[in-house]
Amino acid sequence: MLLKIAEEVLAGSRLALARAITAVENEYDDAVKIMQELYPHTGKAYVIGITGPPGAGKSTLTDKLVKEYRRQGKTVGIVAVDPTSPFSGGAILGDRIRMNELTLDEGVFIRSMGTRGSLGGLSRKTAEVVKILDASGKDIIFIETVGVGQSEVDIVKAADTTLVVLVPGLGDDIQAIKAGILEIGDIFAINKADREGVDRLNIELEMMLDLNAEAVDWRPPIKRTIASQNSGISELVAAIEEHRRYLEQSGQLVKRRTERTKNEIVAMLDEQIGRYIMNKVLTGDEFARLVASVQSRERDPYSVVSGILSAVLR
Amino acid sequence: MLLKIAEEVLAGSRLALARAITAVENEYDDAVKIMQELYPHTGKAYVIGITGPPGAGKSTLTDKLVKEYRRQGKTVGIVAVDPTSPFSGGAILGDRIRMNELTLDEGVFIRSMGTRGSLGGLSRKTAEVVKILDASGKDIIFIETVGVGQSEVDIVKAADTTLVVLVPGLGDDIQAIKAGILEIGDIFAINKADREGVDRLNIELEMMLDLNAEAVDWRPPIKRTIASQNSGISELVAAIEEHRRYLEQSGQLVKRRTERTKNEIVAMLDEQIGRYIMNKVLTGDEFARLVASVQSRERDPYSVVSGILSAVLR
Repeated sequence: MLLKIAEEVLAGSRLALARAITAVENEYDDAVKIMQELYPHTGKAYVIGITGPPGAGKSTLTDKLVKEYRRQGKTVGIVAVDPTSPFSGGAILGDRIRMNELTLDEGVFIRSMGTRGSLGGLSRKTAEVVKILDASGKDIIFIETVGVGQSEVDIVKAADTTLVVLVPGLGDDIQAIKAGILEIGDIFAINKADREGVDRLNIELEMMLDLNAEAVDWRPPIKRTIASQNSGISELVAAIEEHRRYLEQSGQLVKRRTERTKNEIVAMLDEQIGRYIMNKVLTGDEFARLVASVQSRERDPYSVVSGILSAVLR
Repeated sequence: MLLKIAEEVLAGSRLALARAITAVENEYDDAVKIMQELYPHTGKAYVIGITGPPGAGKSTLTDKLVKEYRRQGKTVGIVAVDPTSPFSGGAILGDRIRMNELTLDEGVFIRSMGTRGSLGGLSRKTAEVVKILDASGKDIIFIETVGVGQSEVDIVKAADTTLVVLVPGLGDDIQAIKAGILEIGDIFAINKADREGVDRLNIELEMMLDLNAEAVDWRPPIKRTIASQNSGISELVAAIEEHRRYLEQSGQLVKRRTERTKNEIVAMLDEQIGRYIMNKVLTGDEFARLVASVQSRERDPYSVVSGILSAVLR
């Protein structure tokens, strides 16, 4: 028998959806059971990751993309993740702006997440929230995240297509940003494309993509947008759909998702073994005694570690 | 019976020292055995971490500090770590400059390290190299690292006293740098103190330290140096020695080192469990089958993970 909350999520209840996400976010006791029951109903949604430096206009761009998908009759889920801070003005502001327009639409569900626990935990939880939205029947799910560091890369790993949003005039930082971003971007959007420097940025991006061109079957297209004026949006959606078709027809989508499943299992294993050791080994008096004996040089840390391992592992 | 190489390290052989470090760096089969034999002879050296943004003049400053300690009759080990790249021009250049002056001194041993493996591995290996130098009888060990990111913070965690080197005129980045650095700096050096902006930087630093002042017993001093002119060096060494006395007399040194021992054991446990899972679980056909069954929604990842855990954990 299904849990009532899982049943209601599957039936499309917004309230149940919000509660299930909260349960996962706060690691409530029933979170794993909810996820187990929802899991068989996942895998239908298409997941789009959106990342890029602060100030690139990602929120506005996401909103316009959502509206375009809504025009096509698709239902949409949005997870807005800010890994930089538990108290993010940016994420909150972004949500407020959306409030007016998108939250009145029953076909759209928005949730924002910050760093309550660890960063590692955040990317895993983002992936879980995506699964909940997927099980609830959303056709398209956006993961939007601020910044271009390793945590953002980890977060957008849950996406099928990753859109990297850049903006002209970022200055020298662009070099650093581009280096890390090249690998994760399936599509690049140069937003605020009426600004000075758009051609230079475009050329620089193309040059960097050239370096990588022989190694890949999919050459990431560069699209220019002015999200605030709704300019270039339908072209961007067309590029996303083209990438989707490429992934599906080449078999890459199955490959990517299988790889993702594998990585998620490994991350869960790491996390749970870490937790097991934390609870069973590191909290006891015995561990404090071991540390003291290493500290006093009676024992060495290597034999202590191997002792703990043989006590813990089969 | 001791391994010959461990015996020779303890007897002060420079060649054995270099070989033992190479064994640890490359994870040779006998690395753990070497470390086990050296470990009882560690804990005597005082370890000084030096970090700060590129261009702050850390290498020159380190060299001058080394010479000051040599004048006092102390033997010195230096580990120069560059976490940004496996092929670091910076670290190599720094070493070349030193070559001329310090490597002729039998009382000084220099080793530079880059990222061959993972970053996490780099901080652990740095800590091991420090132990080898310690066992070989060096009185003072410097860990010098470039940059101010999380990896650098992890690397200097192996130090007893951490010296953060700043330089006037870094521009707006200083805000970002200072935020992360405040917590790890026991002493701040403003190097190139004949440059414009030294007073402003000093005031900004003092203001940031004021914010933290009530929470700590040790107020990090700010020292001005011009390393290239040998100016401020003996005052900086005096500040390091004062911090050392503070740590010793307050009992903080034992506390810090115990905490470090604990963290090292935990890091080794994490690493070895990760390796165990990689070898015993993830490589087999069975795991590929499990991933496939999750991918096809026959099974859910949560029950698969708990199944693996009960097969692996006692």
